Amino acid sequence: MTQILNSYALDRWFVPQEGLVDIPSAIDGRVVARTSTKGLDLAAMVRHAREVGGPALRGLTFHERADMLKALAAHLGAHKEALYALAADTGATKRDNFIDIDGGIGTLYAYASRGRRELPGERFVVEGGPEGLSKGGSFIGLHILTPLRGVAVHVNAFNFPCWGLLEKLAPALLAGVPVITKPATATAYVAEAVVRLIVEANILPKGVLQLVCGSAGDLLDHLTGQDVLSFTGSAETSQLLRDHPAVSRNAVRFIAERDSLNAALLGPDASEGAPEFDLFIKEVVREMTVKAGQKCTAIRRIIVPRAQESAVIAALKAQLAKISLGDPRRDDVRMGPLASLAQRDAARAAVAQIAQEAEIVFGDPDAAEPIGADAQAGAFMAPVLLRCARPLAAVAPHAVEAFGPVATVMAYDRLDDAVTLVAKGEGSLVASVFTYDPQVADTLVFGIAAHHGRLLVLDRDCAGESTGHGSPMPGLVHGGPGRAGGGEEMGGLRGVFHYMQRTALEGSPARLSALSRTWLSGAPALVTAEHPFKRDYEALHVGDTVETGSRVISLDDIEHFAHFTGDTFYAHMDEAAAKANPFFPGRVAHGYLILSFAAGLFVDPAPGPLLANYGLDTLRFLKPVSPGDAIRVRLTVKHKQPGRRPDYGEVRWDAEVFNQNGETVARYELLTMSARVVTEAPVRLAV
Amino acid sequence: MTQILNSYALDRWFVPQEGLVDIPSAIDGRVVARTSTKGLDLAAMVRHAREVGGPALRGLTFHERADMLKALAAHLGAHKEALYALAADTGATKRDNFIDIDGGIGTLYAYASRGRRELPGERFVVEGGPEGLSKGGSFIGLHILTPLRGVAVHVNAFNFPCWGLLEKLAPALLAGVPVITKPATATAYVAEAVVRLIVEANILPKGVLQLVCGSAGDLLDHLTGQDVLSFTGSAETSQLLRDHPAVSRNAVRFIAERDSLNAALLGPDASEGAPEFDLFIKEVVREMTVKAGQKCTAIRRIIVPRAQESAVIAALKAQLAKISLGDPRRDDVRMGPLASLAQRDAARAAVAQIAQEAEIVFGDPDAAEPIGADAQAGAFMAPVLLRCARPLAAVAPHAVEAFGPVATVMAYDRLDDAVTLVAKGEGSLVASVFTYDPQVADTLVFGIAAHHGRLLVLDRDCAGESTGHGSPMPGLVHGGPGRAGGGEEMGGLRGVFHYMQRTALEGSPARLSALSRTWLSGAPALVTAEHPFKRDYEALHVGDTVETGSRVISLDDIEHFAHFTGDTFYAHMDEAAAKANPFFPGRVAHGYLILSFAAGLFVDPAPGPLLANYGLDTLRFLKPVSPGDAIRVRLTVKHKQPGRRPDYGEVRWDAEVFNQNGETVARYELLTMSARVVTEAPVRLAV
Repeated sequence: MTQILNSYALDRWFVPQEGLVDIPSAIDGRVVARTSTKGLDLAAMVRHAREVGGPALRGLTFHERADMLKALAAHLGAHKEALYALAADTGATKRDNFIDIDGGIGTLYAYASRGRRELPGERFVVEGGPEGLSKGGSFIGLHILTPLRGVAVHVNAFNFPCWGLLEKLAPALLAGVPVITKPATATAYVAEAVVRLIVEANILPKGVLQLVCGSAGDLLDHLTGQDVLSFTGSAETSQLLRDHPAVSRNAVRFIAERDSLNAALLGPDASEGAPEFDLFIKEVVREMTVKAGQKCTAIRRIIVPRAQESAVIAALKAQLAKISLGDPRRDDVRMGPLASLAQRDAARAAVAQIAQEAEIVFGDPDAAEPIGADAQAGAFMAPVLLRCARPLAAVAPHAVEAFGPVATVMAYDRLDDAVTLVAKGEGSLVASVFTYDPQVADTLVFGIAAHHGRLLVLDRDCAGESTGHGSPMPGLVHGGPGRAGGGEEMGGLRGVFHYMQRTALEGSPARLSALSRTWLSGAPALVTAEHPFKRDYEALHVGDTVETGSRVISLDDIEHFAHFTGDTFYAHMDEAAAKANPFFPGRVAHGYLILSFAAGLFVDPAPGPLLANYGLDTLRFLKPVSPGDAIRVRLTVKHKQPGRRPDYGEVRWDAEVFNQNGETVARYELLTMSARVVTEAPVRLAV
Repeated sequence: MTQILNSYALDRWFVPQEGLVDIPSAIDGRVVARTSTKGLDLAAMVRHAREVGGPALRGLTFHERADMLKALAAHLGAHKEALYALAADTGATKRDNFIDIDGGIGTLYAYASRGRRELPGERFVVEGGPEGLSKGGSFIGLHILTPLRGVAVHVNAFNFPCWGLLEKLAPALLAGVPVITKPATATAYVAEAVVRLIVEANILPKGVLQLVCGSAGDLLDHLTGQDVLSFTGSAETSQLLRDHPAVSRNAVRFIAERDSLNAALLGPDASEGAPEFDLFIKEVVREMTVKAGQKCTAIRRIIVPRAQESAVIAALKAQLAKISLGDPRRDDVRMGPLASLAQRDAARAAVAQIAQEAEIVFGDPDAAEPIGADAQAGAFMAPVLLRCARPLAAVAPHAVEAFGPVATVMAYDRLDDAVTLVAKGEGSLVASVFTYDPQVADTLVFGIAAHHGRLLVLDRDCAGESTGHGSPMPGLVHGGPGRAGGGEEMGGLRGVFHYMQRTALEGSPARLSALSRTWLSGAPALVTAEHPFKRDYEALHVGDTVETGSRVISLDDIEHFAHFTGDTFYAHMDEAAAKANPFFPGRVAHGYLILSFAAGLFVDPAPGPLLANYGLDTLRFLKPVSPGDAIRVRLTVKHKQPGRRPDYGEVRWDAEVFNQNGETVARYELLTMSARVVTEAPVRLAV
């Protein structure tokens, strides 16, 4: 019996009864699954996400959400073989599955790790430092980011049913926003299986993830300015979603990642025989054939120096001829079918359009001889290479995307022309530049950067570890301007912040310190009865302060320090030379002497909850200290952050060193580890 | 003769001949100016910006662009009296002019200063640090921002003809993107005068600024994915622009700042007699009457505890009764007319709508007795205060904006209801919270932050220096979600980056170092023949390196340092106690001792171009140093930045301290000042 794909709504599986649509296999056209959203209450799903999922997620800290992602990733990783098996019918080979399924799980892990490492143990983010808004300092500003109070609607493309779902899911959940995910129907059986695994793992709170299998119905009608609509797919559908009346009226956040005509550029230095020439051929062939070219990041335009054009075409033909097409489950098959007969027909039509301004130099879009499969029943298409003779004048090769194993070679005479050719794509997700010449790299990168979300400069130094032209990375932005949709995804925390509202807070330092859980200059510094180093992590409060006694720095101290450390810089040793320096009034104390004496003033020598000073941030020496000056220190708890282990936390202190006139001579942030519970035998940690 | 407003196109003044539209004075309805865009070649203007203005701007560094903004600000400041005089016919009082004209000039200054201080002396920005993408470290990522290659089209509102123009202009020019500015026709004579001053100052390169006075015609048809469309005004117009086919198809960046129903919230603690109560009354009255309430940030909803409702209404009535309405040029007039009779009619109609769910408790929207002006000929409207009895059930008071001196009082019973009431505005530019209770501040701020771009927490501590509910600040984001348009402006450099493309670069550390002009870990470190401290700023290159000899740290050194500095922390002094610490293998060297010895190893004692070490960043102690360990340092030029004066530059060094096993024990960035030309008598600078 054919599988009926369910939606997952209001924490229950919805089994469609009416209006079922057949989903055929890419390999042989047999019906793999059927689905429909008829009878599904999409408005109730949006409400459920808002009223149940959102509050539950927002109740967790970033670290708790990160831990959830990690557990999800582990669960999916343990069951990925089942996903591989299902994905074969989408046309995916083992190599393709690695990108879609392992890549998706890897993205979950990456966000889990980033959430733990780079986000605070809170439910909001302080972005940047305070902004002074007043002369006296009693009125300041500070930006915070808080989760949107709505739902993230993710509308995905058919080509990456697993990765597409997870790379959008991870940043949204980490931000604290529940998700309604709508996979493309053509490959929704893989996405449904992913969601089944997630539901069965029972890791996410109720209402946090819902699934729509089938058409989107009236889903968008229910969106407001607290919601996010993120789309991957064709420019045509993207415009429909973007211009939907509710989306436009309510300024729903819209993120689009549309297909683009990505370029690979061969530098004039990379002639046949150079390592970069070979890397170029290898990368182009790979990008044309992975996922049968159905990647929005695939190379569509092969831009080469005129002198190398013939050599490039010959080399590409030789490599493309080796690509085995056929049943993706077979080990001897390198490239599977397109996702559907409709996709194959669309790719053929696009080739025909491009061919009006270019010639086909390799492959036949209309003939395929798949290994172990029926050429008529499956959506097979052999690689097709075109050559455009006058690319500066051509239109279609820069504008028509054949979403299959298809690319066009175009030659340039001058480097400027290469830049012009790339720009004719009107915005792409990615381009790659193959050169070992610094000047060529500079000209090309700065010439085309504004048209791209990502640029790969591939050469002999990085090829061994390169992740390749076509792979978006969780830490880097994915998206591009213009034709590519103007959106951004991932990019590390940037992708998380797309689901959060940036709000400028204005008020007194005391108020903004309290709100931000961060001590800010001008807020009250509360001198504690006991030395704050004697307080363990839990007992320390933001604002707790120690004010030290003062210590005179003598000329003897300076000379002694100089000889002891070897730092005999003339500003410390030679009155006349120091005076001639524009920054010093004469001999001055070493900055490191000030730091060291400051530590001597605030240290509490006996064992206690303060375990170690592991670093300093933003140290500035603001005023020279002359022999005879006396320094003292004010040290205030600025921020607390839970550590990687439960038995200690990281404490950031604001340290300000004053001279005898109350002028600040140095300022820095001191980083310490403080025990959370002082035990007799603390756990030994690897640093 | 009535003034004919010109457009400024292709670096020439365009004098319209046909289709002229009358622009009436707000005070008396006489025709102040006439204008039209009939015959203006808007396509040519877009081309001119792209082909002439863009390349010229992009040829300048951020610092050069910042200097340009500063010069512009000075020129406008010297001629602001002429602008004041013109602005009277828009209805602006002296107080209003201070916001519009001085505020606009101040924004130019703010961006000039920020550009110098916070942006590099380059034409691009490196955003964030490198991202590791490989185990071996040979493949990494890095984000850069480069100016878009198009034009910024600024469509402004009628209420701030000067500030609106300049607050959009400054970030765009600093980013390197030329501007076509289109003021609202109703007050375009002020904007035209601003542009005339800018043109006459002859500071901007050709093609960088163009002006469209009159209707926008087919301007948007010519936009692409490299352009930015930034709009301030009504939700209706915003949707028209946003959904324009070219804007949608080409994913033109769209920034909208739409009017919103901003709230002021009185905390339950701030009862009559409390300072915050008085501050609340004062702020509400100010916001209702400045610019005759024609501010997108004005307070429209006055949300108060039920117990305070009568007292608030009584106090507001008393203060509003004192507001003198009339000819804005008069010193005894506090509030001028609305911008036009059409605006007044629209505001009256909005009051009528709100009044279906609220009662008018003060003022008559249909009657005004202006001082020194004709109530019939001018667009005068007296302040109107409404009270909504059932605000949780009401619709219009949360949704209908009367763009004039109009606001509605609504009472809440529980703090949660106050949050719910605010959210019914569906997204606002700003809200203000009046409380001195930390818990109330916390509940309200985190309850409503996601609905706002800015939140002011006003209390007795900051009121003296507060810039007020209605004033967007250059350093803080201006914009809001949902009804407010979902856009962001200003926010310091954030507003600059809206005009730039973010691009992830991938490649080898060597390649990305060269491209980013920043040394990155893993890139070649070139040990120079002479000590790099002997090289002046110009002669130093990114990557120049000194490798020091090594120095053993003995137990004597540690004890000596401890007693000398006073830092006798047990981890340095007591073997048993140190061993019990989870981070240390036994007694270890002080971090500051490592730093000090490191300086002793790399210092070059004699006078030379290196003038001072003025700070450290991101110092981390990565591995304990035990007695007997030997340390050495590698110091590499990471980045160079021109200083505030031409005679020195700031050099950022990567410092890595190794032990005898080649393990990194400490890492930091060292900041120095280096002379650009070593002179016999260097200029003495104030630090």
